[in-house]
Amino acid sequence: MTYHFSDRIANLQPSLVREILKATSNPDVIPFAAGNPAPDAFPVQDVARIAGEILAERPIDALQYSITEGYSPLRDAVRSMVENHYKIPVRENGLIIISGAQQGADLASKVLVNEGDTILCENPSFIGCLNCFRSYNCNLVGVEMESDGVDTAKLEQAIVENRNVRLFYTIPNFQNPTGITTSEAKRREIYRICKKHNVIILEDNPYGDLRFSGASLPSIKSFDEDGLVIYIGSFSKIVAPGMRVGFALAPQPLIAKMTVGKQCEDVHTNMLAQMIIEQFLTKTDIEAHIAKIAEIYRRKSRLMLDCIAREFPASVAQTEPEGGLFLWCTLPEGADMMEFCRIAAQRNVAVVPGIAFLADEKAPCRSFRMNFSTPTDEAIVRGVSILGELLRELY
Amino acid sequence: MTYHFSDRIANLQPSLVREILKATSNPDVIPFAAGNPAPDAFPVQDVARIAGEILAERPIDALQYSITEGYSPLRDAVRSMVENHYKIPVRENGLIIISGAQQGADLASKVLVNEGDTILCENPSFIGCLNCFRSYNCNLVGVEMESDGVDTAKLEQAIVENRNVRLFYTIPNFQNPTGITTSEAKRREIYRICKKHNVIILEDNPYGDLRFSGASLPSIKSFDEDGLVIYIGSFSKIVAPGMRVGFALAPQPLIAKMTVGKQCEDVHTNMLAQMIIEQFLTKTDIEAHIAKIAEIYRRKSRLMLDCIAREFPASVAQTEPEGGLFLWCTLPEGADMMEFCRIAAQRNVAVVPGIAFLADEKAPCRSFRMNFSTPTDEAIVRGVSILGELLRELY
Repeated sequence: MTYHFSDRIANLQPSLVREILKATSNPDVIPFAAGNPAPDAFPVQDVARIAGEILAERPIDALQYSITEGYSPLRDAVRSMVENHYKIPVRENGLIIISGAQQGADLASKVLVNEGDTILCENPSFIGCLNCFRSYNCNLVGVEMESDGVDTAKLEQAIVENRNVRLFYTIPNFQNPTGITTSEAKRREIYRICKKHNVIILEDNPYGDLRFSGASLPSIKSFDEDGLVIYIGSFSKIVAPGMRVGFALAPQPLIAKMTVGKQCEDVHTNMLAQMIIEQFLTKTDIEAHIAKIAEIYRRKSRLMLDCIAREFPASVAQTEPEGGLFLWCTLPEGADMMEFCRIAAQRNVAVVPGIAFLADEKAPCRSFRMNFSTPTDEAIVRGVSILGELLRELY
Repeated sequence: MTYHFSDRIANLQPSLVREILKATSNPDVIPFAAGNPAPDAFPVQDVARIAGEILAERPIDALQYSITEGYSPLRDAVRSMVENHYKIPVRENGLIIISGAQQGADLASKVLVNEGDTILCENPSFIGCLNCFRSYNCNLVGVEMESDGVDTAKLEQAIVENRNVRLFYTIPNFQNPTGITTSEAKRREIYRICKKHNVIILEDNPYGDLRFSGASLPSIKSFDEDGLVIYIGSFSKIVAPGMRVGFALAPQPLIAKMTVGKQCEDVHTNMLAQMIIEQFLTKTDIEAHIAKIAEIYRRKSRLMLDCIAREFPASVAQTEPEGGLFLWCTLPEGADMMEFCRIAAQRNVAVVPGIAFLADEKAPCRSFRMNFSTPTDEAIVRGVSILGELLRELY
């Protein structure tokens, strides 16, 4: 049998990060390449108790088919959270529960982007969504990042120069992979530019609650009086990623089409997980839980940065994120980043080569991503020490 | 803001069935339009006990990210089930856990079908998958059903006459919506024709375990020495649909590409659900459970058919399925089926107009689908009596 693969999938490779993770599932490898939440941030006791209650009291609701839009009480709870906790006026927006934030990027592409149309992203950006965009056979164009967010002049230029720009994808808080937070001025400028050119903004905020320093900034969605922002939230970081539950808040015409798209993909999201998260949001002290996990991430990021300050040569630069899971290191001019990552892996420390996160994976890149949420404290100390020794050998 | 929707989604309407279900969520309406498993078929006690054990003993496995291919012990358990219970040699096939069988149709389309390529389906067929195929902007062509399965001469003709036929979608057991089972001779003929013309067979078997009369027939996948069959199984009917867990068994090159596609859609399937089903398959008497639910469906289908024999005029024909959830009624020549369904709904009995299941939704159709798994016994008796009265008034 000869297999004819579709154009959209023929050249799409598995996520480099996930392949690295599989290759480094060896417990001897120090997992700076991962993106997993810290296991001690999971509300294990609450989830176990709530799951038991649901399966004792309302098992059929948890086991039967449900509607594509999502479990109504969860949608209500998310609307409240979005208004009260994130200060986003819900306005005329619709809301759909999705099977993880990734599905939001998928559905936005599905309903808005024809093959050959353009999607703009920050460069670098989250590989999972870049691969998703590629799977729609679009023209994927990266716009350079600066220390306070995307270069907005280049964003407008890219909108003007490319054909049918349908989406601009941004992670304004503690971006993956760079850890960069987009300034409020740039958030407003992004909104202004996209509104002017009729480009939908896909605002992905999986890490927003994991802020451990600096002041909260308003989301781009909070400016959205004109209906051009699809805001995607996730419960992967504040509850648990294995549940695969997120949500999208967007103008109702977009949510209606995304619902049709989701019906074609998975009918609806796992019901028990939706019900557990609804109870978790409404019956536990979610603010205390978020404060607790932000403190875990603050401590771990501080530890990694302190180790880096001690061990890495001054010629290596790194970001200092105000939240999230990642920091981004850049080697000195002339360095061979792939070679560095390769030798680091030989010495049992896994980091992710920066090229994995570029719209054009063949562009030059001297950076790599480090994650501080997955490794234990001891692994952070030991891993940074091994990397420091290697860096001092090479540069 | 003006929204430019993609071509693939602009003309796609929400599933007529799901819209009817929403409209008839009124508890006074008798739900012959649904497709829900009978709630008393759910293994509530087992699921509650297993979920409790997992969250007490291995909570982090259930809550953390996992690999796209699916939870390894579940994949092993499904391989065993497929070989031992369904008599399908696993051969060189790969296996991926998916978020319900629907995602199997989605991923098969994603990896095999370019826009404008042809997908063939039985006519009528399952609306959820038809809409999924439409969402890939393909040329969707229906091939007429006969009482023992698709018309194989017309299948071959459709393959020859249409451009780039990439997939033939079939539900060989107790098809949705007709309840028809494809004969063994036709299964072998379908395989021969598709092999000859290099067309991949997408064999969807959500109802196969729900056989309550007649002898089991070999799946098309069991003939597949040439690697052209993607076999999709579901736990929605034998465990619970709210969990959204299914699997696809296919040649490894196809599974590898489907895995890349799934990574872009939802990263992986809900972990707790995967772990619950693994324990259910390996630690409970699954054969006894299947026998129990098949008996529930046998009794309910018998009740509905007995009521129909008593209440419907002889000019109305219906299928007598050997399993599954549905039967298919056809009104006499000249009848206005849509008008019948409309009046039935006014009298608080919901059935699904047959056109919902046609590749060409504008084609003439005198049939409607009735479900016997969702309504209570009393509702079956009362609903068929109301429909019978209406039919005797009209025909």
